[in-house]
Amino acid sequence: MIVLDANLEQRFALAKSLAEKAGALALDYFNKRDTLVIETKRDLQDVVSIADRDVETFLRERVAAAFADDGFLGEEFGHQVGSSGYTWVVDPIDGTAPFVNGMPTWCVSIAVLHGGLPVIGVIQVPCANELYAAALGLGASLNGEMLSLDPSRTIQNAMTGIGCNTHVAPERVGSIISAVLKNGGTFIRNGSGALMLAYVAAGRLVGYYEPHMRAWDCMAGYCLVKEAGGQYLPFSTVGEDLLTGQPVLASNVSAFTELLAIHNANGGNGPGS
Amino acid sequence: MIVLDANLEQRFALAKSLAEKAGALALDYFNKRDTLVIETKRDLQDVVSIADRDVETFLRERVAAAFADDGFLGEEFGHQVGSSGYTWVVDPIDGTAPFVNGMPTWCVSIAVLHGGLPVIGVIQVPCANELYAAALGLGASLNGEMLSLDPSRTIQNAMTGIGCNTHVAPERVGSIISAVLKNGGTFIRNGSGALMLAYVAAGRLVGYYEPHMRAWDCMAGYCLVKEAGGQYLPFSTVGEDLLTGQPVLASNVSAFTELLAIHNANGGNGPGS
Repeated sequence: MIVLDANLEQRFALAKSLAEKAGALALDYFNKRDTLVIETKRDLQDVVSIADRDVETFLRERVAAAFADDGFLGEEFGHQVGSSGYTWVVDPIDGTAPFVNGMPTWCVSIAVLHGGLPVIGVIQVPCANELYAAALGLGASLNGEMLSLDPSRTIQNAMTGIGCNTHVAPERVGSIISAVLKNGGTFIRNGSGALMLAYVAAGRLVGYYEPHMRAWDCMAGYCLVKEAGGQYLPFSTVGEDLLTGQPVLASNVSAFTELLAIHNANGGNGPGS
Repeated sequence: MIVLDANLEQRFALAKSLAEKAGALALDYFNKRDTLVIETKRDLQDVVSIADRDVETFLRERVAAAFADDGFLGEEFGHQVGSSGYTWVVDPIDGTAPFVNGMPTWCVSIAVLHGGLPVIGVIQVPCANELYAAALGLGASLNGEMLSLDPSRTIQNAMTGIGCNTHVAPERVGSIISAVLKNGGTFIRNGSGALMLAYVAAGRLVGYYEPHMRAWDCMAGYCLVKEAGGQYLPFSTVGEDLLTGQPVLASNVSAFTELLAIHNANGGNGPGS
């Protein structure tokens, strides 16, 4: 028997609706970015920053209007603590480098936390017209089709997503990629960690690993992977931990141990991990 | 004054027309791949192989019907030497790993060589509905809009595409990626070298480097980059060299020296390069 949780379902419906509207807003900036550079006499980086802030403001206002007591954490404007027990965790545009450079691999990422865990994860990919959506106990879907991970996929017969940023030393990134290849795998990096996590939930990648991510980059993807039948490395949301970069690893159940071993062997247990 | 070359222009028109038809054929396989696995009782790898061969056969037949004396080199069915001085070099589906795994980053790549150089380069990206097309002296375009590379883009302020395969040692791949990051750059790998070369021509990536590629993977992209105003590392097409894996490097004029230094410092001058 499925127990309907009205608190969860109402927020899930809002998250999906807002993701589509936010995606359309961001796509409008994406398509007009060259014109905006000329009109505003700014550079592309400024234009994406404006788009980022505009999309986050839209989401903050709509969530506050619907659930005034919910907390809200966004990449652009920080953390507003709530009292309802629910906290929205949002990256308005994940993959700003692809966005700025005209590549389609960016997305809007919306999660809702409850009890420290992501109970809702919605990722909208405007250039591909894809909506990934999951909620605790309700499964994960892509454009309405339910997702279910195949345990026969491994690092060796599928592709692994790898992410990095300036918080991770170049040598460590190189070592991680060497390790994936030495294990007989192959890797993808498309510039959006949230999107690659969504790809894991859809079975397009067998797993995703990045040594240092923020909550707004990974929480929606984590919920998606979990609800598709995969697993993830816990991300602490206790106190200031919610704002702290942590290692992110998610995969189907078969690849998890092998990816965790790569994490542990490449600085995952050492200082700075 | 532009001297019209009917031999080139007729082949350029055919290449663009065939790329769109081949792309539609491949997209049909892509969209039906799960059904085909069930119907044919084969695995996904078999299905992509069938698609690859079917698309290449389509291209071979159409080229032979129009230009019976042209040579033809395809990834699937090898090299048929011609007598006209023109050789078609085709990868029916570049990026079979993304194709098999349901990711949109694969393409049809068609080049025509003359005098050992790629004089036509056409890349069709079915999932993005993009047609990249270039011919010697006629410029490069994306869906009809002319492309012109911006020399202010560098490794430091743009993204670099990196490719690899099992011909390149895992440690070398890791070192290359570390070097790009140490130089203040960031990288993308989307699983299709031909598509990443097209991205260089479109200014989405500042450069692309892969230590070992085959002619059918890179020739169309090379023509695109050159005609967009960039440059590339020469790829020998003399005799058996045409069938031999070689390092591939293409970029705008600003990033070329820096990427070449990364190539040289990471096995580019050593054995196995």
